[in-house]
Amino acid sequence: MSVLQEIGSNVRNMKQLENSVLARRTTQIKEELRQGVRKSYKEVIDVSWGDPHKAGVKPLSFVRQVLAACLYPQLMDGDKLLVDVRQRAQRLLKACTGGSVGSYSATAGIPEIVQRVSEFIMRRDGGVPSHPENIYICPGSQWALTNILTVLVNPEASPRTGVLTPVPCHSTTVLSLTALGAVVVPYYLREESGWALEVEELHRALDSAKGVCNPLALYVINPGNPAGYVQSRKSVQEVIRFAAEKRLFLLADEVYQECVYGEKTEFVSYKRALAEMGPPLSDRVELASFHTASKSLMGECGLRCGYVELVNLDPTVMKHINSLFSTNACAPVLGQIALDVMMNPPQPGDPSYHLYVKETQHIRTSVAENVKRVDEVINSLPGFSCQLVEGGAFAFPRLFLPPKATKRAEEAGMQPDTFYCLRLLEEAGVLLSPGTDYGQKEGTYHIRFCIMTSLDIMEELLRRLSIFHKRFMKEFS
Amino acid sequence: MSVLQEIGSNVRNMKQLENSVLARRTTQIKEELRQGVRKSYKEVIDVSWGDPHKAGVKPLSFVRQVLAACLYPQLMDGDKLLVDVRQRAQRLLKACTGGSVGSYSATAGIPEIVQRVSEFIMRRDGGVPSHPENIYICPGSQWALTNILTVLVNPEASPRTGVLTPVPCHSTTVLSLTALGAVVVPYYLREESGWALEVEELHRALDSAKGVCNPLALYVINPGNPAGYVQSRKSVQEVIRFAAEKRLFLLADEVYQECVYGEKTEFVSYKRALAEMGPPLSDRVELASFHTASKSLMGECGLRCGYVELVNLDPTVMKHINSLFSTNACAPVLGQIALDVMMNPPQPGDPSYHLYVKETQHIRTSVAENVKRVDEVINSLPGFSCQLVEGGAFAFPRLFLPPKATKRAEEAGMQPDTFYCLRLLEEAGVLLSPGTDYGQKEGTYHIRFCIMTSLDIMEELLRRLSIFHKRFMKEFS
Repeated sequence: MSVLQEIGSNVRNMKQLENSVLARRTTQIKEELRQGVRKSYKEVIDVSWGDPHKAGVKPLSFVRQVLAACLYPQLMDGDKLLVDVRQRAQRLLKACTGGSVGSYSATAGIPEIVQRVSEFIMRRDGGVPSHPENIYICPGSQWALTNILTVLVNPEASPRTGVLTPVPCHSTTVLSLTALGAVVVPYYLREESGWALEVEELHRALDSAKGVCNPLALYVINPGNPAGYVQSRKSVQEVIRFAAEKRLFLLADEVYQECVYGEKTEFVSYKRALAEMGPPLSDRVELASFHTASKSLMGECGLRCGYVELVNLDPTVMKHINSLFSTNACAPVLGQIALDVMMNPPQPGDPSYHLYVKETQHIRTSVAENVKRVDEVINSLPGFSCQLVEGGAFAFPRLFLPPKATKRAEEAGMQPDTFYCLRLLEEAGVLLSPGTDYGQKEGTYHIRFCIMTSLDIMEELLRRLSIFHKRFMKEFS
Repeated sequence: MSVLQEIGSNVRNMKQLENSVLARRTTQIKEELRQGVRKSYKEVIDVSWGDPHKAGVKPLSFVRQVLAACLYPQLMDGDKLLVDVRQRAQRLLKACTGGSVGSYSATAGIPEIVQRVSEFIMRRDGGVPSHPENIYICPGSQWALTNILTVLVNPEASPRTGVLTPVPCHSTTVLSLTALGAVVVPYYLREESGWALEVEELHRALDSAKGVCNPLALYVINPGNPAGYVQSRKSVQEVIRFAAEKRLFLLADEVYQECVYGEKTEFVSYKRALAEMGPPLSDRVELASFHTASKSLMGECGLRCGYVELVNLDPTVMKHINSLFSTNACAPVLGQIALDVMMNPPQPGDPSYHLYVKETQHIRTSVAENVKRVDEVINSLPGFSCQLVEGGAFAFPRLFLPPKATKRAEEAGMQPDTFYCLRLLEEAGVLLSPGTDYGQKEGTYHIRFCIMTSLDIMEELLRRLSIFHKRFMKEFS
């Protein structure tokens, strides 16, 4: 018997994701295919994560060349690499302690790269000042969010600390909140209005927390995940006003800021909107904004690097955040280098500029085409309805399942959308995630899949999904 | 005013490391040197962290070549890279999702690399079985330790969860324990016996916890950090028997297992000793063992990758650990690749074998020479006494400060050893850490510095330290 007589309720309450059942079955299916078992497909298309390289998107050459040169500086001898690649690598290596990417960096990141991040933010926000000492580079934005939450969520507080959280919501945030002992206070995005974030709903959610917990923070995801909305400037301002009025700390997950597809859609950062609103709000509302090298056109998820910028935080709180970040030494240095390129890509006139633009443009147009195709194909299928994806990496269509299907799922002890996804995986070799992992209005079902794929993978995915879906709907009609 | 009326006491209680004061001053001094301010030194020698590349140790070519080839596969065209480098990179890329190091891996790591880790452990432990499903690759061993502790430490428990922790101890572990709300139950290593871990002291420590907390785990560091001891097989067995008798979960920080210098000294893993002791102990004692690519001869700290192997854990507990690891997606993929090389270096007959052996041998002999020189020089200085370093990356000599120096430190509101380190930094341009950051018997003072440096950096360090130390002792005599 374990020495652990009792596991803390916070950890115990962490939900097991349905996706893990699907991931396990995927591993088995891949092994079956390897052993020559005959199926209607030769390989599994996995679009369950926001992982562009997994889904056929190619890495950007400039990023990879700079990284390779930093790792193995002998590559810079001769002229195989363009001069701007060599110069960038030399500059970055000089900024690394001991001139090696194998050394730890400062806790908040390599100072020169932190400086670049802050310059990027200022350009993005039309000149709103950004201070390097408020920026922490970290191994992934989710990791940073957990650290900030560790300071925000007081495990001894009674009533417990509440965090207003969207439904649907990126699943790991909810897991982290639960593990820390916070109360998740759900607010629902309005699907029929393109997953709009409405302030009346925030009021309702806050009221619902009365007597249950002490709401201290409001978590927003813009552009959305899994719901692909992009907030307008007006919407961002409304949320800031609400946070100010209710004295809530704003946690802005803005990792998909580079991924905006609508023609008239524009990403406006919470930091910019807040600054533009002027005092007293701009001096008062506490804000943490998250970004990452994973969730951008470069899509370097495997390098594990992001950053958080903190605005209007009390120096005492900053001190504690610094201590927490120190416990993991620093972010992966190669991830930091990718971040440097992302913040400061080749400029007109640089030898690598042309290829860089060509490659990023190719990704942009492919994803825009995917968005269009998803809209056309999914909305033409019976029992499906999909809001137009304005930003982010995912489509999150609603699935209207026949009662016979939900009944069969129930008999199998499964959520209806998990049942659908498992059948899709089994019969069509497509792995995507059930809406139940992200939260959804009771009685509604969804699926989530990544749209940052190559064109051919998206076509094959839609082809397999269409055939399967029609057969499934017929079977249970 | 912040929305945070009250920060939880766990976070509030995290100790501010003295080292951060020194690090800030170092940044300023470097800037002063850059601006041409004249000092008795041209650059600061920073040996405050266990970071070999920072201290002049060269990266291993094979590791860097494989990493560069994985990042930028075009490098494999032609024959610039040796065939075993190309083959290794091709095999690893095939194991990456989507054939890119930019994709997420499975939460526990790339399955093929997890398999290699488990084979390495079996070889190391003379054939004791190791199961891949009990291994989690993670962004640094400290990160894994924090996750395991999150499951072990129940924040709601009363009395609170206790963890027996050595003094002196690696500082980030103590920070993590505090942040999680655990009670640190100190046990003292006996300096006069080469920092021996004595079971009577463990009994004393456990008794001291009565009425204070509920001790659930015993944390051991072998080889030591900051104290450079290596436990004998007998000592490891005694600790295991103690843990079994007292029903304690064993947390074995074995990250310096590759770094053992004594001629008759041998590293024996807790896992091996436990298995060799046979049932009932070998089926019952719960153990987590940590290792990393940072703390080895390759010294790739900046890549941020390690692993934990779990032994005899309850499946329910494993499920929760899995959930916690999932919240950060996966370890940096390039770090995982470095781990693959570390677990499975070039073998006799491989084209890269000769260079690999030459480079690792050079590091080994340099560090062995450093250990000898530290012993000679430090022990020849008045007011210093240094136990022989048997393993790990640090010397932790005791400093006998004159009363006038401790008085002056007190007046300056500083710990005496911090005062010493700050003066050393200022006057000699050497950055090392004060013992107070690691815990030490009351009234004793120490300094910690990295011995994994190049020979010339160590000589220069010892030269500067000797001159400064004699002057300092004279000034305060």
